[in-house]
Amino acid sequence: MKSFPTLKRNLSLLVDFYEITMANGYFLNNAKDEIAVFDMFFRQIPDNGGFVIFAGLQQLMEYLENLSFSDEDIDYLRSKGIFCEEFLEYLRNFKFECDVWAVKEGTPVFIGEPIVTVRGPAMQAQLIETMVLLSINFQSLIATKANRMVRAANGRPIMEFGSRRAQGYDAAILGARAAYIGGCAATACTLTDITFKVPAVGTMAHSWVQLFDSEYDAFTAYAKTYPQNCTLLVDTYSTLKSGVPNAIRVFDEVIVPLGYRPTGIRIDSGDIAYLSKKARIMLDEAGYSDVPIIVSNSLDEYIIRDLLLQDAKIDSFGIGEKLITSFSSPVLGGVYKLAAVKKGEVYEAKIKLSESVEKITTPGLKKVYRIFSKESDLAVADYITLWDEHIDESEPLEIFAPDSPWKRRLLTDYKLEELLVQVFSKGKKIYESPSLSDIKNYCVQQLGRLWEEVKRFEYPHRYYVDLSKDLWDLKQKLIYKNRF
Amino acid sequence: MKSFPTLKRNLSLLVDFYEITMANGYFLNNAKDEIAVFDMFFRQIPDNGGFVIFAGLQQLMEYLENLSFSDEDIDYLRSKGIFCEEFLEYLRNFKFECDVWAVKEGTPVFIGEPIVTVRGPAMQAQLIETMVLLSINFQSLIATKANRMVRAANGRPIMEFGSRRAQGYDAAILGARAAYIGGCAATACTLTDITFKVPAVGTMAHSWVQLFDSEYDAFTAYAKTYPQNCTLLVDTYSTLKSGVPNAIRVFDEVIVPLGYRPTGIRIDSGDIAYLSKKARIMLDEAGYSDVPIIVSNSLDEYIIRDLLLQDAKIDSFGIGEKLITSFSSPVLGGVYKLAAVKKGEVYEAKIKLSESVEKITTPGLKKVYRIFSKESDLAVADYITLWDEHIDESEPLEIFAPDSPWKRRLLTDYKLEELLVQVFSKGKKIYESPSLSDIKNYCVQQLGRLWEEVKRFEYPHRYYVDLSKDLWDLKQKLIYKNRF
Repeated sequence: MKSFPTLKRNLSLLVDFYEITMANGYFLNNAKDEIAVFDMFFRQIPDNGGFVIFAGLQQLMEYLENLSFSDEDIDYLRSKGIFCEEFLEYLRNFKFECDVWAVKEGTPVFIGEPIVTVRGPAMQAQLIETMVLLSINFQSLIATKANRMVRAANGRPIMEFGSRRAQGYDAAILGARAAYIGGCAATACTLTDITFKVPAVGTMAHSWVQLFDSEYDAFTAYAKTYPQNCTLLVDTYSTLKSGVPNAIRVFDEVIVPLGYRPTGIRIDSGDIAYLSKKARIMLDEAGYSDVPIIVSNSLDEYIIRDLLLQDAKIDSFGIGEKLITSFSSPVLGGVYKLAAVKKGEVYEAKIKLSESVEKITTPGLKKVYRIFSKESDLAVADYITLWDEHIDESEPLEIFAPDSPWKRRLLTDYKLEELLVQVFSKGKKIYESPSLSDIKNYCVQQLGRLWEEVKRFEYPHRYYVDLSKDLWDLKQKLIYKNRF
Repeated sequence: MKSFPTLKRNLSLLVDFYEITMANGYFLNNAKDEIAVFDMFFRQIPDNGGFVIFAGLQQLMEYLENLSFSDEDIDYLRSKGIFCEEFLEYLRNFKFECDVWAVKEGTPVFIGEPIVTVRGPAMQAQLIETMVLLSINFQSLIATKANRMVRAANGRPIMEFGSRRAQGYDAAILGARAAYIGGCAATACTLTDITFKVPAVGTMAHSWVQLFDSEYDAFTAYAKTYPQNCTLLVDTYSTLKSGVPNAIRVFDEVIVPLGYRPTGIRIDSGDIAYLSKKARIMLDEAGYSDVPIIVSNSLDEYIIRDLLLQDAKIDSFGIGEKLITSFSSPVLGGVYKLAAVKKGEVYEAKIKLSESVEKITTPGLKKVYRIFSKESDLAVADYITLWDEHIDESEPLEIFAPDSPWKRRLLTDYKLEELLVQVFSKGKKIYESPSLSDIKNYCVQQLGRLWEEVKRFEYPHRYYVDLSKDLWDLKQKLIYKNRF
């Protein structure tokens, strides 16, 4: 397997410049070895959906594992004239020393809970902020969007076709990886197949049809070249008057005599509901009721749902720009905030206040649990505690919503699963990424443990992320202490 | 200067899989050496704006110049079991042979005109489709969006701060490059500074303020570390009650005694209009009327415009996700379509019809001119002709809108400039990318040659891209010939 392209590039300085000015500042202000804890979390879900699918961890780990600064990097920084030589020397000999915890890729995650936690020297933990966020935000965004489309397609395969409209090369390559995690069956992006073994698929563009003297000639040539995998694009001139009749003729004349069955027709423009129904009838009447219809024209989850509601005859979908850019909601706004600083042997919790209440952070070094009903195995809520709290699972657990603490619920028949796994220990990687197909399967399995109500497109049921009583008290205390 | 990261990676197979199945098909169907002409163009402008700024050519050229296939690539393709050995051998010895024409980076371009034209063996011209589109679509999108924000800011500098929310690593690095072309003054992305000399800027995050025992301590430490470049983030606890007073105190106690002037305060949350006005008064009263106020809270061109209309006291803007993802319109939908095939010594024009009229292509090997008024030096319209048409600039030129040919206009005092320059000749690069600052200046200059009406955000004046009479006639002929 080809290693991921990040490894072949030096991305160490893919950092916001302020991370370096701060790191140099910590160095000069005796905060170099101060141990800090940062959490990544998000405050909103794209498309106002019910959950986000966590993805991008493998690439983040590759970055952290290889983090070092070249002479060229150091020379560049020196040329800025504001960094001290000792700091530059520190970077030259940089050794990553942080502990990192993260959610497993493919896990559904929710607003406000830590999905990555970094503990280590403040200047190191600060320096990786951009790459933590950039790695996780993008792939989680696309995995989440892909899953919406997969849910809308209701069992019909979705193929990711968006490279040409992706926001840059990595967006194409890693976007297709994330889409696969979210449930897509395949991609058009060849490099993602080489790199991550996401099956690459594709047959012909309109140019193939145009290049020959006629559509019939083009179909015939293609059928003879790929009789075992003959999917014909039928909308270059007229889907129903030309494309489908020519396809049927070539299936009859080339594919069937060679002992194969056609693998499909593809419609890429026009009114898909109407055209697919008409094409279905034509194929059926010609004896090709087994031949699938693939459609691929600016589709998103809402159009997919509507097409299927209108009984469009579609067997699989190829989705381009609306998936690879998460068009209707193109940002997952994960943030990375200081939660605690070690003072002597204890962690002093830190908070960031804000005029906007939802921007107030949850302080402290924490653990995150998912609470499942023992009876149904469905997730009830997530539950954040202080690091050293103990929960006795044999005892009932009272949980309450952090923004409305009078809403209380006593859980009895429950079990807990910790969400965060440690992936780096003192700078050393201690977690191996599963294969991508294992991640994909894990995602399916974990989504199966969410209530259907959480998966609704519009106004999904709000899944609660609760704070333990001790954590809630700590947060209130810090708000009152720091408010003006 | 660091070479661009694409060079350090093998992106040769960043192609849609169908480009390979088609290439292998052309190989087997004696169309290997058939010379084809492909045009890239777009059908819609993001945000319904008046124009797109063309960008991304330098990266596309680097890809084409280095296009080759490794043994690993060939082994991968062989493993698919559908490609013939002769074709794989052809790829192993691949030598790019195409002619490529493109618009210069920084040029405003319009709907329907060729912005990249590729002429060469069909299988080669087809194979590069994804990278042509991906390279140009993304950077043009971001350059265009950045320019909207720059126009809204009306002379105040805009800094690109979006790496953490970008759609992948390249989107951060190259997005910042494109934003600079579109008029941004600086970026937070350090790697874009190293790679492209876009000035990287940045001072502190909230975590700096939180890490110290108090905001005052944090500001003091920062001021002592960077007295010559002291911009303080004032919204960690309370902008007006704590942040600005502490900043003023530290300016008084540290910066001024050291003989410097503060470089700014930054507000990152809350109501920017209100807070900036109040902060301005506080700074002015303390003797810091020269100290700029920088704001950076989920801004886009509309909010920038509204803030300035409300007389917010803002000197510069830091823009994150709304710029780097072109949030409100995250796709430039460029397409790459077959326009002609060489038959003997002549180019046979090719057309793609569609149920959607705007999707019908403009056939043939073409040239694109921009027509300027000699008197005003402002652009009047773009004008597409057949390759071998001659225009006598000393004669009046009658132009008409291709979708309403009765709208005619006789030009007399005009001059023509060709938009496309040849950048590859028979596979050899013959054009050197200007420096990024030259591209940026060129963009400013070319935008200065557009009517203000074309630059309006909402309902901009439609700039016409006209076809010559001969080209229009050819298109009509092919439509009628191919229609059903």
